[in-house]
Amino acid sequence: MLVALAGGFGGPRLIAGLLDVLPPPEITVIGNTGDDLVRHGLHISPDLDSVVYRLAGALNPELGWGLAGETWRVMDALERYRGENWFRLGDADLATHLYRTQRLADGATLSEVTGEIARAWGLELRVVPMSDDPVGTKVTVDGEGELPFQDYFVRLHHSVPVSAVRFDGADIARPAPGLVDTIAAASRIVIGPSNPIVSIGPILSIAGIRTAIAARRRDVVAVSPIVGGSALKGPAEHLLRELGHEASVVGVARYYADLAGCLVIDEVDADLAPRVEAEGVRCVVTKTVMADRDLAASLARVVVEARA
Amino acid sequence: MLVALAGGFGGPRLIAGLLDVLPPPEITVIGNTGDDLVRHGLHISPDLDSVVYRLAGALNPELGWGLAGETWRVMDALERYRGENWFRLGDADLATHLYRTQRLADGATLSEVTGEIARAWGLELRVVPMSDDPVGTKVTVDGEGELPFQDYFVRLHHSVPVSAVRFDGADIARPAPGLVDTIAAASRIVIGPSNPIVSIGPILSIAGIRTAIAARRRDVVAVSPIVGGSALKGPAEHLLRELGHEASVVGVARYYADLAGCLVIDEVDADLAPRVEAEGVRCVVTKTVMADRDLAASLARVVVEARA
Repeated sequence: MLVALAGGFGGPRLIAGLLDVLPPPEITVIGNTGDDLVRHGLHISPDLDSVVYRLAGALNPELGWGLAGETWRVMDALERYRGENWFRLGDADLATHLYRTQRLADGATLSEVTGEIARAWGLELRVVPMSDDPVGTKVTVDGEGELPFQDYFVRLHHSVPVSAVRFDGADIARPAPGLVDTIAAASRIVIGPSNPIVSIGPILSIAGIRTAIAARRRDVVAVSPIVGGSALKGPAEHLLRELGHEASVVGVARYYADLAGCLVIDEVDADLAPRVEAEGVRCVVTKTVMADRDLAASLARVVVEARA
Repeated sequence: MLVALAGGFGGPRLIAGLLDVLPPPEITVIGNTGDDLVRHGLHISPDLDSVVYRLAGALNPELGWGLAGETWRVMDALERYRGENWFRLGDADLATHLYRTQRLADGATLSEVTGEIARAWGLELRVVPMSDDPVGTKVTVDGEGELPFQDYFVRLHHSVPVSAVRFDGADIARPAPGLVDTIAAASRIVIGPSNPIVSIGPILSIAGIRTAIAARRRDVVAVSPIVGGSALKGPAEHLLRELGHEASVVGVARYYADLAGCLVIDEVDADLAPRVEAEGVRCVVTKTVMADRDLAASLARVVVEARA
């Protein structure tokens, strides 16, 4: 059994690769819910949906989120009422949010609904939110103060300096049911190449999950989302630097040092391998840029075989 | 100034006729919110929307509700998750519910949002919900017990015998702000040809509105939704009979006798005019079936000129 932590971008790509290497029922994905939001009364879980849509082969390739072949009838009609609308949701994507919201109102947990959605898309692996309790990623931005994550990420295009990130509710949020046991029983735990601060950070902000992973450090493999000093997508590089980390594979090794016994880095960073190992983290060098499915499967094979 | 009470079907047709007879800013429509519901987390106000859509010339002519030229992308996508779905909402219609739900979450009242929606559709008359407080029409159905209105109306196609109708919350609901003053100041109050029990009934279930209308009885004109002993659309005939009323213009006259000084009935019921007047209600006989816009305007002219 393998457990993988994933945000919305690099993480799901790696999991797609893992599906080519392991039987799907042997994989559990822990998804980030720190950027969940309620908008128009709908409970939206962007990262969980990105995992499901990508693994179902339905992710919108142009946007990198939402569904392929999407239409925008509802959002276009909404313009009659509201000119400014920076958070656009496609019609088919909205159906997911309508379903989730109705099920939660009916008393289902987010874990249950996420499982239902994954199965409805034909997935055989387990997709689990980090918690059924709300945890909200809050980003302190120069000039605007503390904002909900989507305000920073979508409205401000994550292009503004950040002075702090906080996970509201993490102190009382419990790991999703069964998650701690799953981590304890896993043969391997993978921290995907997602943003360490705002994609993996919220998952690790739940003490029960962090402790369970730290207890398995020898079997935990992280994949660096930083390649050649920058992130392939999103604000990981800026956030690491602005919050006092080194924006390099060494910074990532240090960030995960108490959790991951092994860090997989890209060949372009091979010269930094000694500095990674100096952090007490075994370093594996390979191709980590998952430009196609074969490369994702190759990386997945390395991740499954790597040993601390 | 004219005030009109309207449900979702006949009432809005008459108001469309009134718009051809009076300057729109002189008209206030009181809409029924007894069949409002929350579904998928969205606040849906079917009757208010039917009023706005019809007056904007945007009502779906085949369905008699929702928007013309509608698409069903979201509902079609929802079928992936949920096979059975008896309450279908079109894509453009959903935008109205998304907007309303967001504004209510922002702290706006239903009156404010309804005004915004009406203006967004270019309407110059005032459309006001009966109350900003929740009132839920509950229908007791043989074998199923008490159901929310839409369960009875949409899921069961209003085809089952009803033993009771109740307006949950009406005892504490306040009339929408300004409504009692508007009724007191109106030169004419019109009870449209909507279902007396479940369209007009919820409006009258709010004591402040009922009292304000009763105080103006001489200036209140009702239009019978029963023509030749049956309703043109919907379950008015059955409901009247099942709840102990006569399903005729005489039954309607009796139902509104303490509120309306005048009842407009159709020519096919001319022979019943003496029985209507025997209830202490002045009876006006004219064509009431609004098959086209000219007939609606003619009926509107009769309604505006009728005197108790």
